[in-house]
This record gives sequence, C-alpha cells and structure tokens, in this order.
Amino acid sequence: MGDSIKRLAVLGSTGSIGQQTLDVVRSLPDHFRIIGLAAGKNSTLLAEQTNEFKPEFICYSPVNKEAEETLTSLINFRYELLSLEAMATHPQVDTVVIATSGKAGLSPTLAAVKAGKNVALANKESLVMAGDIIIREAKLSGAQILPVDSEHSAIWQCLSGERQKAAQLILTASGGPFHNYSSAQLKEVTVTQALKHPSWQMGKKVTIDSATLMNKGLEVIEAHWLFNMDFANIKVVIHPQSIVHSMVEFVDGSIKAQLSCPDMRLPIQYALSYPDRLPNPQLPRVNWSEINHLTFEPPDLDTFPCLKLAIEAGKNGDTYPAVLCAADEVAVEFFLSQRIRFTDIASFIERTLQQHKATTNPNIETILAADAWAREKMFKMVNGED
Amino acid sequence: MGDSIKRLAVLGSTGSIGQQTLDVVRSLPDHFRIIGLAAGKNSTLLAEQTNEFKPEFICYSPVNKEAEETLTSLINFRYELLSLEAMATHPQVDTVVIATSGKAGLSPTLAAVKAGKNVALANKESLVMAGDIIIREAKLSGAQILPVDSEHSAIWQCLSGERQKAAQLILTASGGPFHNYSSAQLKEVTVTQALKHPSWQMGKKVTIDSATLMNKGLEVIEAHWLFNMDFANIKVVIHPQSIVHSMVEFVDGSIKAQLSCPDMRLPIQYALSYPDRLPNPQLPRVNWSEINHLTFEPPDLDTFPCLKLAIEAGKNGDTYPAVLCAADEVAVEFFLSQRIRFTDIASFIERTLQQHKATTNPNIETILAADAWAREKMFKMVNGED
Repeated sequence: MGDSIKRLAVLGSTGSIGQQTLDVVRSLPDHFRIIGLAAGKNSTLLAEQTNEFKPEFICYSPVNKEAEETLTSLINFRYELLSLEAMATHPQVDTVVIATSGKAGLSPTLAAVKAGKNVALANKESLVMAGDIIIREAKLSGAQILPVDSEHSAIWQCLSGERQKAAQLILTASGGPFHNYSSAQLKEVTVTQALKHPSWQMGKKVTIDSATLMNKGLEVIEAHWLFNMDFANIKVVIHPQSIVHSMVEFVDGSIKAQLSCPDMRLPIQYALSYPDRLPNPQLPRVNWSEINHLTFEPPDLDTFPCLKLAIEAGKNGDTYPAVLCAADEVAVEFFLSQRIRFTDIASFIERTLQQHKATTNPNIETILAADAWAREKMFKMVNGED
Repeated sequence: MGDSIKRLAVLGSTGSIGQQTLDVVRSLPDHFRIIGLAAGKNSTLLAEQTNEFKPEFICYSPVNKEAEETLTSLINFRYELLSLEAMATHPQVDTVVIATSGKAGLSPTLAAVKAGKNVALANKESLVMAGDIIIREAKLSGAQILPVDSEHSAIWQCLSGERQKAAQLILTASGGPFHNYSSAQLKEVTVTQALKHPSWQMGKKVTIDSATLMNKGLEVIEAHWLFNMDFANIKVVIHPQSIVHSMVEFVDGSIKAQLSCPDMRLPIQYALSYPDRLPNPQLPRVNWSEINHLTFEPPDLDTFPCLKLAIEAGKNGDTYPAVLCAADEVAVEFFLSQRIRFTDIASFIERTLQQHKATTNPNIETILAADAWAREKMFKMVNGED
C-alpha cells in the first residue's frame, strides 16, 4: 500500500468535520497520511492533533501571540508554519480537506482548485458564493471537487457510472429539531432547543442552519454547481430519520438512493478514498431490524422561508447567493448570542436580499464586496439603524 | 436513430412479462423492433401481436393443428415459422427476451447464451436450475445476461460503476398477500386469496411463489449467479410497499437502493436499453407526497419455510436447485387446482428435497433428469403413493 498513500491537508482540523476526518485517517493509517493541519481557534486541540499525526506543516490563524506560544509550548515535534493558501497548494499535498466553516473557506478552496488539487469540500459557502468561478477554475486545472456533505456525497455515489442520465436530484432533509412546528411556536424557540439536532452531531452554525432549513437551501445551490443541474430539477424532501441521504431520478424514472447511518465519517471517507471504497470496521452499519420505518414529506416553505429564500437567491445568481450566505452567517451569530429571535433569521435575510443591488458576472472581488455589504446591512438592521 | 434500433425476439410474448415488453416497444418505436414472437398457449393474442408488430419470425409451440389453423387464419402478414432455439440464436436477433415461465425457459436461454446474444432474462428457473452452466457459457461466448426481475434489475443498477466493491446484496420482498399471517391462518387460505398480490400484477405461478416467499428464495439463487455473490452475503428484507426494489451494501457500509413504482415495464425497458436509459412518458413516477412511508422487517422463515428451503437448496448446489424448481412448479399447479393446501406446498417440496440423491457437477442432462425425478416424486406424494 506504501506508494498509494494519499497525503492530506486538513483545513479546519479542530472543527466537527476536521476531527471526524482525523478519525477516519486514524482508522486507515495504510491509506492516508496527514501532511498539513490548519485551525483557527482551538490551539490546545491543534497541538494534540499535531503531536499525534506529526504533519509537515501547520497553519494557525488568526495568528495571535499568546495562542501561538501555547501551541509552540505544547507541540513536541518539528513542523513548518504555512499560510492556508500555501498549505492548500503545496506540492506535497494530494487532497485538501476544506473543513473550515463560513466565508473563510472560499480563498483556500479557490487556491487549491487553481492548483489542480483534489478538494474534499465540506465548506458550503465556497460553492454558494462563487460556484461559477470555482467550477470554471476546476475545469481549467483538472482539480476534482469531492463533496463531503452527506447529501452531495449520496448524489455523487448514486451518479456513479451514469452521470449523464440524471433527470432530477432529490435532496433529503431531516427537517431539524422544529419539524412540524408552527410559525407561532417557532417564534419562542431557544438557542438550546435549536442546537439539539435530532439525528446529526454537527458544528453550531450548520446545526442552526438545519433548524431553519437554510442548510438545505445552501445545499440546493451547491448541488446546482456540483452536478450541473437546473434548479427546476432539484427537489427537497423531508425525511426525519436521516437514513436516505439523497436520491437521483434518472431519465427513465428509476431512482437511486444512498443510505447509511447518520455518521459523517462515511461521506468523509468516501471523498478521501474515491474512486475506491475502503472497509472500515469503525463505521456503523444499517441494521434493518432497527431501521424499519422511513418517512418522506414535502417541506413547509411558508413556515421555513429560509429554504425558499436560498433557492430564489440561487436562481437569481450573480451576487445574491453571496449576500444570502453573509446575511445568514451574521443572523446565526446574532441568534446564538440571543440578540434576535429564531424567526428573525429569515426576515432579516429576506430584507437584506431585497435591498441588494446585484453585480452581474461577479469576480471574487465583487463577491467579497457583496459579502461585506450584506454583513454591514445586517448589523445595521439588528441595531435598528436601518 | 435508424441504425441503433435493437432487434428483439420475445419468447413468451403472450404472458405478463411478454405483453409488458411489447408495451415498452410500443412506447419506443425508434429504439426497438420486434423481429420474433414466440408463445405457447394464447393463439388469438399471438395473432394480434403479429399483426401489430409484423415480426419476421413466429414460434408457436406446442404446435397443435387446430391452434395453428386459428393462428394462420388470423394473421394477415407473411412470416417464417421457427423453433424456439432457432429464434433465440437467429443472426438477425440482437436481444432475446426470455419471458417464458418454468422449465421451458432453460433450453432457449442456454441456446441464446451459447450464441453470444444479449439475453434479457425474466425466466427464473434457467439460472436456478443451471446457473453454473449458463454463467460459464456466457463467459465463453461473451453473451450479456440482462436481468429483468425488478430485484435483480435494482441490484444491477445499484452496482453501476462499482460492481467490484459490493459486500452484500439486500433483496426486498413485498411479503405477499399473507404477510403477517400465522401458520394456522395460512392453512386455510384459498387460491383466490393467494392470487391477490398487494402490489404487483404478475402471472399466476410467480404470484403464488410470492405468497409462499419461494419467489424470493429463487431470486436469492439467481442473485448468487448473476452477481457472483456468496449466499452468506445475500439478505432478504420484507418491504410491503414494493418501492425499494433491492439494495447493495458496499465494503464501506454505504448502501445504494433502487426505487420506483411497482411497474415491470421499467426493469424490462432498462434491460432492453442498457447501457442507455430512455425517457418514457408511459412509465409512472414516484410521487413523494403519496409515497411517504417505507417499512422494512426481517422475513419470518418459520411461517414461510419456502424461503429457507430455497436458500438451503442454493447453498447445497448440484441438482438440489433443479429439484426445488420442479417440485415447486408441480406443487403450485396442485395448489391452483385445489388438490393441496397452501401450506402443503412447502412440506411436499421439503420431503422431495430430503429424498433427493444429488448428482455432483451436473450437466444439462443430469439436471433435466433430476427435474423429471422430482416431478414424478411430487405426483406420487400428492396421490398418496409415496
């Protein structure tokens, strides 16, 4: 196996996806080697990961004197300090895992894509904000974008061997902790309730996005770019058990679905091992005596308007999706710090989108300008200045 | 499309699968042309089909003077009369659809396979009786065996692009009309009840086999041969809604499932169009608002012993599966003519299998001898002579 070991750089290694990526590598040491680790907040954990996986490169950002000293004092190993972009494009790296959340994923994703790397992409915002640019650059460089999200991984797996014959993508959504809540009930929900996802263990941002269904909306936009599918042919179905991770309907009406226990290590591992699949006894198996009941229903777009807002922003294109992302990122932070109510998330985002004057055919600079505009707008609104 | 039209011979054109095959051809006249039709019983329908599809060849067997005269008088078209084997191997035929039921399918299947044809196989008995021989001959001649059964079609579709990575096949079974019946209740069921399948419209033999779960047992043996999978890695799951037609679990624990409305025209069309998929507005689409509830449970092997008998016969190999098929064919006939009870089907088959002295590494002659032995044994048992 020696010469087929894939050398990985994990950007966002201390987050939920980053930690699970390292867990996969820990289970399959003959297949993967960690060559770079990058994290932004948790210096203690980054130091532990560095001591365990002994990467060649580390990126710690934003660099803060005190945190850097902590890190240096904890690591008992010689490493080189690199920037995110330098790590994402380093010749020794085969696959870059983009596990950073939010806008911070965009720049290293684009750098890795331009460098022709395999990019295992867990960051949603990159494709939502700049899907057109990233896909175009990937075609030019030959970079492979390997989706890590369970829904896109499911679709990708279902498309195996017959990508050209897909007629419709069907994304499943758990419905989140507030599935079947009324609009009136939603006004009163607390941060603690919103952070209790019924089937998935995830980071805070994506957990709140799951509760509003914004997460599914962002995934619709990503699916549009990843699989070159018109928005009209991307459907969302609520499936509370989170066993069917998504489906593809082919031109003859036949549907393929991908199923597994809700455990992110499987789609992470598939992205890393692709085009192979690897046995991993650590991964849970579906037990058909326990999993005996799967339900499906249409989403309630009136009660959960974020899904509708996202799909509209995706269809409108240009800088609208960047504004959607930025407004959502700010809104979720405000909700988590209890400055706005759960239902305000959608209404503030909607107002921001309505007031946005889009730039057509945006480049990265205009996309980042739209992002900055939306963030400022959101701050003003919440502070009652707009 | 002219030169890509596939020329089909349909063996068993007046049966359920035969008629649905012609329905697919009717919907897609630019893709398929009927070049041969063969049927055994319904001369009026065969005449109608001949007048509509204008094949070059007809096979009417068993040839009976009166029936042949009826046929000749009804057909307003010039055709050539061929034997089943001659039609199955004719140079003008691209794909042979084997839609005959029972033992009668074996000989033309083997002939078509030896001739290197594409064989769209709906007949279960061929592979169950002589899977080893048929698969070996197909490898020698380069014949493609294209499964038509919804379960095997589902597995085949799920394996697309990654056949080597399958770890387990999961066949779904509707459970038939007597799902959840007790053994005591099963003793009293009538022929009319047994012929009322809850989700599929099929011929009588396969409908009764679905009610006893023998059908699923035969499919396990077929799956073993079609996909080169050990019996230990083929599971059966009861799924009464008949939407998930079967599944494949891969080495990493990821499962792919194929879903569609229970309509045989889809797997028939897939076998005919493979490796393409064709849009066909006649085929129903899954509507996720209506199909909102899928359930799964393990089969009850004590109440439905035919499934267990079939899997054991498959594992034992040699001439046991041929004896299983023959005993079942006779038992179902006796049940349909109300000479034995529903629960007698399994017990007579079990006694026949117990008394069988198998021939190892059988050839077609020894397989047919075992078939004849089992039929005679069954007749004697039912008549109280054994």
